Amino acid sequence: MKLKIKKMDFATGRPVCMIHEKKAKEMSLHVGKRVLIKDKKRKIVSIVDTVEGIIKPDEIAVSNDIFEALNLKDNEIVEVELADKPNSINIIKKKLKGGILNKKEIEEIVRDIADNALTEIEVAFFVSAIYTKGMNLEETGNLTWAMVKSGNQMKLNGKIADKHSIGGIAGNRTTPLVVSICASKGLIIPKTSSRAITSAAGTTDVMETIAKVNFSINEIKKILKKTNACMVWGGALGLAPVDDKIIRIENIVHIDSTAQLLASILSKKISVGSKYVLIDIPYGISAKVSLNQAKKLKNKFMILGKKFNLKINAVLTNGNEPIGNGIGPVLEIKDVLKVLRRENPPKDLEEKALFLSGKLLELAEEAEKGKGYEVAKNILESGLAFKKFKEIIKAQKGKLNGFPKPKFSFTVHANRNLKLKHYDNKLLNRLARDAGCPEDKAAGIYLYKKKNDEVKKNEAIFTIYTVSKEKLIYAKRFFKKNQKEIIEIESR
Amino acid sequence: MKLKIKKMDFATGRPVCMIHEKKAKEMSLHVGKRVLIKDKKRKIVSIVDTVEGIIKPDEIAVSNDIFEALNLKDNEIVEVELADKPNSINIIKKKLKGGILNKKEIEEIVRDIADNALTEIEVAFFVSAIYTKGMNLEETGNLTWAMVKSGNQMKLNGKIADKHSIGGIAGNRTTPLVVSICASKGLIIPKTSSRAITSAAGTTDVMETIAKVNFSINEIKKILKKTNACMVWGGALGLAPVDDKIIRIENIVHIDSTAQLLASILSKKISVGSKYVLIDIPYGISAKVSLNQAKKLKNKFMILGKKFNLKINAVLTNGNEPIGNGIGPVLEIKDVLKVLRRENPPKDLEEKALFLSGKLLELAEEAEKGKGYEVAKNILESGLAFKKFKEIIKAQKGKLNGFPKPKFSFTVHANRNLKLKHYDNKLLNRLARDAGCPEDKAAGIYLYKKKNDEVKKNEAIFTIYTVSKEKLIYAKRFFKKNQKEIIEIESR
Repeated sequence: MKLKIKKMDFATGRPVCMIHEKKAKEMSLHVGKRVLIKDKKRKIVSIVDTVEGIIKPDEIAVSNDIFEALNLKDNEIVEVELADKPNSINIIKKKLKGGILNKKEIEEIVRDIADNALTEIEVAFFVSAIYTKGMNLEETGNLTWAMVKSGNQMKLNGKIADKHSIGGIAGNRTTPLVVSICASKGLIIPKTSSRAITSAAGTTDVMETIAKVNFSINEIKKILKKTNACMVWGGALGLAPVDDKIIRIENIVHIDSTAQLLASILSKKISVGSKYVLIDIPYGISAKVSLNQAKKLKNKFMILGKKFNLKINAVLTNGNEPIGNGIGPVLEIKDVLKVLRRENPPKDLEEKALFLSGKLLELAEEAEKGKGYEVAKNILESGLAFKKFKEIIKAQKGKLNGFPKPKFSFTVHANRNLKLKHYDNKLLNRLARDAGCPEDKAAGIYLYKKKNDEVKKNEAIFTIYTVSKEKLIYAKRFFKKNQKEIIEIESR
Repeated sequence: MKLKIKKMDFATGRPVCMIHEKKAKEMSLHVGKRVLIKDKKRKIVSIVDTVEGIIKPDEIAVSNDIFEALNLKDNEIVEVELADKPNSINIIKKKLKGGILNKKEIEEIVRDIADNALTEIEVAFFVSAIYTKGMNLEETGNLTWAMVKSGNQMKLNGKIADKHSIGGIAGNRTTPLVVSICASKGLIIPKTSSRAITSAAGTTDVMETIAKVNFSINEIKKILKKTNACMVWGGALGLAPVDDKIIRIENIVHIDSTAQLLASILSKKISVGSKYVLIDIPYGISAKVSLNQAKKLKNKFMILGKKFNLKINAVLTNGNEPIGNGIGPVLEIKDVLKVLRRENPPKDLEEKALFLSGKLLELAEEAEKGKGYEVAKNILESGLAFKKFKEIIKAQKGKLNGFPKPKFSFTVHANRNLKLKHYDNKLLNRLARDAGCPEDKAAGIYLYKKKNDEVKKNEAIFTIYTVSKEKLIYAKRFFKKNQKEIIEIESR
């Protein structure tokens, strides 16, 4: 069936097309079904909405995703046909029933996600299946490799290194520091990150406040030539693109499966050709994992990493408390700048960044065993790390000021003399998300006081920032409801 | 934020609204987020698409679901605000982690599904959660009751009875027969059904080929006054409306969880005020359940049914083979008519209908223990059942002829003398669905030969019918690929 594109400029976040009700009937198409839209070169699977009135029966309106993916023009003729229900739905069902998937089956699902042949609802079933039924190491390895194959790969020369945190710790923005320090020592670090899954901000969300993060692979190669490091969004590069689609769905219910976590992290590292990979696994009472789970996860990372010929190390770090003072994109980059500028830096953030930098330098044999921390500290204190950071920001077309500002705030004060005992990371992250993180860059939480700090009556403990009045109301409501769990105190 | 409705007539199968990109930015709204749309009396939660060009910044276009739910007019002013992310998402996450949900939590999820406060993706996570983690009997009972409370309830007087099959057996259209037979004996049977989940047709899909199935509660009461029975679609009545939403999502991956199955069936029976309830549980190699599972399921039905003060019986029936000759809406109603008219009726269909009718008559004390089958047989053979059926069809504004016809067909012939050993129900259902069932009423499969039949070389075994050429291609492709599993034969 040939239909004429009617340009309508609508964004739906996934491929959707509108077909005239009359035409839909002719094709025995129903709302919510799938069609294949083809031009001369490309094709994409789309979900059908039916319309009357806005378009003529021989026209089709497509969402921006489709318009861009097929590089369409207004009035262009496309071929539209009923799409086969993909067999991967049966494979998803097999996993929901607890079955073990083989290489071919996993590749089929990943390919169908890449081609948009599966709808978001179907991807949600897949995400649930691997979350509830788990995947063994072989399945996880196959998922990793299928994700790599589904996307582009970067070919780079030299000592390519990378670090990654499994996340979950509020404020924990070590990446810009570790990258700047290790790149100063000559490592090539094509750092790609995704956006936050369950926390207030991911490295991408944070870097975006200060520089561009959206580059083509060729542009990245140019940046790396200038600076030997970058910090960019992985989603735009088509490196393991399926990962981003899955993360978007996981994000909806704030879940993170172990298999997906391993595959997500490793596929990105393999796609950029990393050889030296350091994984940070924060564990603790309000972290993503307990000490025991952290040990198991480390083990899986080591086995899978070696399977893919990586020089890999995974370190367990204390994840009981938030790291740094700011939580939220802008607030976190400000902490990073304080460390780099040596201006009243949050001590815990600095220490953790030095520890991780040291470990990565040792792994890549740029520092002797046990000497990494010292080497890293010298680089930071000498100003070399800040110099490198500025180089990267410049290469990524950014600047060090002009951050968006919040519009509303709410500060929590001590109602008596007290000692601060504990912050809950999960709840701090939820609070920051209610405040608008990570989409609202200026939103978040700033902690004036941390664990073991003595606080005098009427002193400020922390401030919640938002860009809309409604979100301040949500955040305050959430804080009031969960006050005792968010922050534990002891009277003095 | 006040916006003006722009009528656009688009169907999306769920509440979606289009907001101008400029306005969306102002509200810090992103594609895929939720808004609450309110007029003076009602409110509905909707997913946001953003547009440029089609509408003005002060306008909003809403999908037909919203237009109808709020009873809107073109140019009407509505209030639009950012909707809170519902807490039920956290409850769904708890279930995904394997937690036990309490009454309040289950009610919250069901209410949010009823109010469209959860998106289809979120409902998919809920469906996966109860499918993979299961629900204990207490949770299932709470789910049942929450579903009843979410909808309307019918208040009727008299001996209200009902039958229900858990499904899965191709062609198994006993309901119109059982209803006609038992209603002839005076039972009041407000039979509501849903559409097919995993099989070729549900009773609603079948009845729709011969009569209207879409009535209001008041209309049904009038029909019952005339005929003391009806066979209508439950979805339009607002009886346990959440059930239909869940089924639509389950349908996507063709899964059916035990808890959902129990809650779905019982909530519908309770909502119409049924007192005598007969459940048919077909078991066997290609049925939904094995004998062992069937026994467990029966046990759950009995316990839950009694908890809700029903007089309930669940019978295990042989589900190894398809029942009747036709598979698909029109083909099945034709089988039913053959039984009622006593014109060359499919014997297996007739026998099963008599068995079930007998059991229901005994349960409702309209026949002595052990005499139900005989009573039912007399009613069928005397023509009373057909008379009752015609009364019902007339009351539901139907007629006994003028069925839609298929356009394409493909007949499988024996390539040698053979004996037919077995049909696989699941694969027959899939084949019929590939042929277009249940949406395409005339599509399906007609079996000329059944288990143990001797077939001569070149004799026809069955025919596949479709209404579109593409679907004939799909169905043939599926048949060729799965031939040996769909039909087992023995050379003669």
